[in-house]
Order: sequence, then structure tokens, then C-alpha cells
Amino acid sequence: MVIPVETFTLSETGGTIQTRIKRQIVDGILTGRFLKGEKMPSSRQLAGHLGVSRMTVTLAYTDLVADDYLVARGRSGYFVSPTAPAGAPASPSVQRQSDRPRFDWTRALGNRPEPPPTVARPANWRQFPYPFIYGQTDPTLFDSQNWRLCALQALRHKDHDALTADQYGQDDPVLVDVIRRLILPRRGIRAEPDEILITMGAQNALWIAAQLLLTQRRWAGIESPGYPGIRDVLARTRCNTQPIDVGPEGLDPDMLPQTLDVLFTTVSHQCPTNATMPMARRRALLDRAEAQGFVIVEDDYEFELTFERSPTPSLKSMDGSGAVIHIGSFSKSLFPGLRLGYLVADAPFVTEARRLRSTVLRHPPGLVQRTAANFLALGHYDAQIQRLRQAYHGRRALMTSAITEAGLIHAGSVSGGGSCFWMRAPETVDTEVLAERLHARGVVIEPGAAFFYDADPPRHFYRIAYSSIAPARITKGIKMIAKEIDALR
Amino acid sequence: MVIPVETFTLSETGGTIQTRIKRQIVDGILTGRFLKGEKMPSSRQLAGHLGVSRMTVTLAYTDLVADDYLVARGRSGYFVSPTAPAGAPASPSVQRQSDRPRFDWTRALGNRPEPPPTVARPANWRQFPYPFIYGQTDPTLFDSQNWRLCALQALRHKDHDALTADQYGQDDPVLVDVIRRLILPRRGIRAEPDEILITMGAQNALWIAAQLLLTQRRWAGIESPGYPGIRDVLARTRCNTQPIDVGPEGLDPDMLPQTLDVLFTTVSHQCPTNATMPMARRRALLDRAEAQGFVIVEDDYEFELTFERSPTPSLKSMDGSGAVIHIGSFSKSLFPGLRLGYLVADAPFVTEARRLRSTVLRHPPGLVQRTAANFLALGHYDAQIQRLRQAYHGRRALMTSAITEAGLIHAGSVSGGGSCFWMRAPETVDTEVLAERLHARGVVIEPGAAFFYDADPPRHFYRIAYSSIAPARITKGIKMIAKEIDALR
Repeated sequence: MVIPVETFTLSETGGTIQTRIKRQIVDGILTGRFLKGEKMPSSRQLAGHLGVSRMTVTLAYTDLVADDYLVARGRSGYFVSPTAPAGAPASPSVQRQSDRPRFDWTRALGNRPEPPPTVARPANWRQFPYPFIYGQTDPTLFDSQNWRLCALQALRHKDHDALTADQYGQDDPVLVDVIRRLILPRRGIRAEPDEILITMGAQNALWIAAQLLLTQRRWAGIESPGYPGIRDVLARTRCNTQPIDVGPEGLDPDMLPQTLDVLFTTVSHQCPTNATMPMARRRALLDRAEAQGFVIVEDDYEFELTFERSPTPSLKSMDGSGAVIHIGSFSKSLFPGLRLGYLVADAPFVTEARRLRSTVLRHPPGLVQRTAANFLALGHYDAQIQRLRQAYHGRRALMTSAITEAGLIHAGSVSGGGSCFWMRAPETVDTEVLAERLHARGVVIEPGAAFFYDADPPRHFYRIAYSSIAPARITKGIKMIAKEIDALR
Repeated sequence: MVIPVETFTLSETGGTIQTRIKRQIVDGILTGRFLKGEKMPSSRQLAGHLGVSRMTVTLAYTDLVADDYLVARGRSGYFVSPTAPAGAPASPSVQRQSDRPRFDWTRALGNRPEPPPTVARPANWRQFPYPFIYGQTDPTLFDSQNWRLCALQALRHKDHDALTADQYGQDDPVLVDVIRRLILPRRGIRAEPDEILITMGAQNALWIAAQLLLTQRRWAGIESPGYPGIRDVLARTRCNTQPIDVGPEGLDPDMLPQTLDVLFTTVSHQCPTNATMPMARRRALLDRAEAQGFVIVEDDYEFELTFERSPTPSLKSMDGSGAVIHIGSFSKSLFPGLRLGYLVADAPFVTEARRLRSTVLRHPPGLVQRTAANFLALGHYDAQIQRLRQAYHGRRALMTSAITEAGLIHAGSVSGGGSCFWMRAPETVDTEVLAERLHARGVVIEPGAAFFYDADPPRHFYRIAYSSIAPARITKGIKMIAKEIDALR
């Protein structure tokens, strides 16, 4: 490609004009901004742009040819030489002058909570033969052909205007309509459009809820073990956090503290134990919320993947007083890089949530919203869910028999479906050490300590998912985990 | 389309099973979830899903045919009747039971700053024949053909994996590379990849900077008049805000208060006056920042639209100590619904900004990032800018002569370019009244009061943009503004 003439500016000092032009070109090549083989602007263009004589530019170019920074190709002009010198890979910015003190960011950064522990996942997990990693999808299961067609449809001229304009705080009405009519009823929820907000995934919805409802003086209840992503969200509000123990039937409403403003829960499919809260307990939880006056934030992630029985209705569907904020996401059913989710709550809350979202980011991109709306409305979404369920069902069966055969121990629910198992190693095994040793053998598992809200969390739990691993690799992978646990115990 | 069987659930109470099924269908039709002509699931399917006998479902369906909710079409099955009764347009959610007190959101919403004044813009502005609205684009100037091709390229199988995975806190490296090599050098900026963060538009970048740098005890300086969108961003941090007056050369560094932690400025192209700060003043501003130790957030919006002379280098390009955070956006050069911008700063700041963005929304969608990267790398972006500049140049000339002829008065800079003019009406004219009266005649202008950080702002300023109005309408529209001002004075 041709290097745009606009990338050139003439510095005010630094030698003759010719020197300054040369320095800028050399700098561009050494720092990797100008790539080998790229074409320089013509001397006429560059001279016109910088307001200098064409001869000055030509002399700079010919000098650089002599040094093999550039090559001249007859009438075609000048190009970055294929054998041009290569610079240091990470040279400091020009703006950095070693004789000047750098700005002190330690002092300037006013709001910096300690990073909470996160689940260690190798960024290059796709290169691992046995990726029992959670929350990523399998490209072989995604209907990218129809997704492409839906994107094309969204890019049609007719829709283009709606997708390119600044919608201020508004969402794509087509997507809101599809969620309202086709998705929420599956969770037993009826909602008007002003009770729905599109978010940048469930994470964004959780953040918005926490940001609006929690202050330094308020109390949040979270499940332990629970979704680690909530921790950083809460740390930003500086609220007080109370962990609530989770058993085989989810959290116990009778164990909730008297002082509670917001409870974050995953009743239908607890993260990470996969426990489902029985209906009687849900009613008790809602009664409790009404009596104590706290808000329940229901993260209804992954409900589409309940394939071993009908999914239980959401807590929001039983919510008589309106204290439940329901959060859903397309990260598991479509793909996480889409960054698309939604939040359903009483209109007064949604109005404030919309205002906050508008301040922070305006709205999710129109193209992404309309593409998803098309995919849902045309039924591809349901076909996709069906395909995922079938594939996960098969993988889950392989996981289950491999786990039994290898003598590994479940620590969570094994019914209902989902995309992972919550496991327990012998107490003497630190699963972070286990995970590291398994990485070296090409196996990715998720150590469990980060799921506990505890200064000294139990270290012998771990999670293994089957959403990204090839079925043929499951049995061998599970065996390798068992072998490594044996070696460590 | 077929109504998915998953949208049906059997409530626990409410009469016989048949009644409960009927009620759910009637409810779906009356509330507009099931649309006329949509196909019901087969009785076999629905019976299987609900775990009831097929006869029960068939009887429910035939009863509903009698009431004209459904029609039977021989072997094809049952459909929502084209003449089905229509419900009230906004019936309350089923969850709402009138005998129960609703949750009190007034108390629960802990963080709710007063909404700051905003620039009133009609949502249906595209229907107005004379839209002198700012910040929206003209679809006739956008190369949607090549944008579509770039999106298709991003949707190729090869790239699909990179675009669908959860990237945790990371950006698309291809977009970062293109910004670093092709965009930033035009502003005189050299940056390493770890000094760049992709944001959801400039608004998101401003919000991130404010959130990280300001607290209740800190001071922010903003330009007055200035970008109104910054006000809500600052209100969320509860910081102290100091307005700084802006003249024909931008703000005066000598007028900055001694207590200042962060200064938000638009030095190259002041919003809304279009003033350009001279180089000597910029140096004085940077010296001042270094001496007092405050951070400068440079919102370098719209630099691509400087078409009447070469754009001045950014403040960041002169930043010796690293105290400048540079913000850019593709909202003006591509389109605002894209929600894509970037932030350039020292790595320690970008690291914290990335962490915050990851907590709030993870990352901008992969598809959007890669499509923009392709559009830039293939040179379509430069062609696009060129087309915008030419079109705006022509419209601007029409605006200028119409303004002169109509005797309207400029209140800001008229050199440099951009996409709007900042105007002054006689002091007795309230431009909000003016705007309202003009709306009734099909003319959109932006009243100026919201641009001032002042309890009692001047009310006779207004802004008129030429980014969305058809050239043929400009002269007539300006005349109408002049006429209405005359009537009001």
C-alpha cells in the first residue's frame, strides 16, 4: 500500500528540512510503522503537503536509497527497501525525552482498587490439544454461514441509516422486539420495551446494576463459590461484600444477613457448581427480598444450554414486587466476542441504567445489534441452540464416563446440563500447581481458588468445561488430569 | 415464522391445564408477542414440551379457533388468526400484581446524579427538511459498498475465530496496528501498542479517563463553552468542576486555577467555537501542566475534517513529560453508530484503563474492530475523508455566503474547517425558543445554553452544522433561521 502523505509532518527543529524529512522516514521504518515494500508518496505530493520544494524531497529520497532504507523502481516511485535496516522492536516514543521527568501516574490514578484474583487462562489456549476451558465457543458448532448472511442483511442500504446514526441512548428496536417476543417468554418473563436494556454482554449488565445500586455504605451479597467477574465490579463501587455459602440447592435464604442491599445470584444454574435452586427455596428468597427490601440481580447465564431437562423458569418470572433485575447474554448461545446481553427490570431502574450506559458508551454498535436480531428472527438462533445442545450432550456423556473411569470427584451438580463440571481434588492438591503442570502437557483446566470470596480460599477445587474441546480428546485429557492429580497428592 | 415451543411454560396454578395453555396463547396474542399469521407449534410438539396429553393441547387450540384467536389451515397446522383480537398496546407485565406493593427504586438507586442539561435534538431529525444537526453523518457520503466488503472480509472463516472469542481485556491487534501506523502519525504521535486502548467511541474514552483520574476531592477543568457530553461524565465522579473561559485562541493557560487535577480540552478544534490554539499557547499550557502536575485530556475529535489548511499537530505530539491523554474517534470520519474510538497515553495509564474497560464491558466487539481495520488498511478510509472534505467544503461555502447574506453573526472561528459554525443571536433572543419555533418549520438548530457550565448560561448562542443537510437546502434554511430571529428579537 501507499503510505499516506498525511502521516508526514515537519518538526520545527532538528537540522535542515532535508534532514528532518529523512529522519522521519528512517524513524517510520525503524519503528515498524512503514513496512518493507510499502510505497512512499510521490515527491510532488510530499513536497506539496509539507510546503517545501520538490527538490528537497527528492534529495532526501535519493539519500535514503543510498542507505538502503528506500529503493527506487523507475517510474513507479520509491518504496521501502525489502532489505531496509530493522529497528529495535520496542523503541520508546519520540515524545519521550530522557532528560525530562516522566509524569507520575501513581499519584494521578485516583481510583485503583486492587486487582482481585482471576481464573488463570492461557491466552493461546487454542494451541492446547486438551482445552477444558470455560466460556469460549467451538467455531465448528457455529453457523457462521447464516451469521454472515444476517450481517449482510443488516448492512443493506435500507437498514444502513438506522445502524450508522448516533442513537444517543436508544437500542435497536428490532433487537428489543425479538428479545421481548422470542427469548424472554422462554424464561417465563413478560416485559415491555421500556423494561429492557441492551448491554455489552452480561458483564456490562452486572457492572451497570452494581454501579447504580451500591455505594461505600451499602452491602452486596455474592455466592461463594461464585462468578469471579463480579469481584472487580464490586471493588469499583467500594461497597461492603458478604459472601454467602452455596450448597447443592444453591444459597440458603435463611443464611442471608440482615444488612443486605443487593444480592447477586445464579439461581437456575449456579456458577460454578451448576446447582439449581428448588422452587420452594426461590419463593422463600423472593419473600425474604420483599421483607428486607433488597434487590436481587439474577444472572441467568447459559439457560439455553439446559439440555437434560426443561429449564426451570427464571426467578424474575416469579417476581411479584419487581425487586429482581434479570440479566441474560448471547455469549454462550452465539459467541462471547459479540459482547451482547440484556437486562430486564422495572422501568424506573432501566431508565437510570440507560442513562448510565449512555454516559459510559452511548449504545452497543448498531451493526452488531441488527445482525443478532436477524439471526434470532430468522430462526437460526434456535437451530444453533439445538446444535449446541446435541454436541454438548454427547461431549458431556464422554466426560461423565471418563471422569468415573478415572476416579475424579464431582463437587457440584451433575444434572441439568450446561457446559462444565465443578470438581474437587484431594485436599492436599493445590489446583494452581496442578493447572500449571497440566499446561506443560497441553491440558487447560481452571483452578478454583478465584471462585471463593475468601482471604484463604480452598485450593483443591477446579473447573473443567467441554464447550471448546474436541470430543475425541476428552477421554485422554481426563486421564491426564487424573494422572497429574495422583502425582501431586 | 413458527413460534418456538420453548416460549411456552405451564404455570403452577390458574385452572385446568387446558385453561392455562389457552390463557398463555391469548396472552401472547394480546400483548403482541405472537404476531398475526405466525404458526403455532404442532400439538405433538407442545404436548411433549409441557409434558401433557396431546388431546389437551388440541382441545385448547380448537377452542381458540372458535374465538378467532387461531385459525386451522388443514394439514399445515394452527396459525394466529389474521383477524385475532388486539390487546391494549401497553398492558402491564404478568408479574405485576396490583395487590402487592411495588419495589421502591427511589431508595434503592444509590448513585443518581442530576441529569445535566443536554442539547435538545429531535429524535426524528431525518424527517426534517433542514437538519442543521451536528454529529450525524450523511449516508450519501458514506462508502457503504466498501464497508460491506470489509465486513464480509472480517466475517471470513479465517478471521472468525479471532472475532468470536472472548478476548478478555485485549483489542484486535490488527486495528491497533493500523491506528498506530496510519492514523496517529497524522497527529504527530508515535505510540507503542501498549500505549493504545480501543474504546467505544470518544465518549467512552472520556469516561474512562475521568473515572480513573477524578474523585470527590479532585478538580477537573473544562472549557466553557465546551462539549456538553463531558458534564454527565464528571457528575458521575462527583469531582469539583472548574469552567475555563474560551476565547478566539482557545483557553488561556494563565487563567487556569492553581488547584487542578485534570484539564479536558479540545485545543486543535475547540468544541463548539472551532477555535485553534496557537502553538505558543500550547507550549505554555504543557509547561503549566508540568509545573502544576495536572493531566491534560486532549479530545482530538474531528481532526480529519480540517480541510481549509493543514491540521495543526496534536498537543500529544508536543508532550515531553507524558501528561497528555490523547483521544480520537471514528464517529465523524466513519459513522457515530460504529462506537469506535481510541485513547493514547503512557503505558501505566493505559494498563489501568484497560482493566477498567474490561470490568465494564470487556472489549469492543471483534467484528466492528476488524471491519474498521480492513476499511483503514485498504485505503477506503482516506478516500472517505477526501469525499467528506470535498462535500463539506462545498456546503461550507454555501453556508458562509448564506450566513453573510442573511446577516447572521458568527460567534466562533470561521477558519480551518470542521462541520459546523458557532453563532450568536441578538441577546434578547432565547435560542431554545428559536429552536422550537424553527422545528415547527422543519429546521433543526442546536440551542447553545447547554454548552456553558453556568447556572445561568447565556441563552442567545446556537450551533448550526452542515454534515447532514442537503446542499440545495442550505440557503433557504439559513434564511428561515434569520427570519425567525428577526421575529423574536
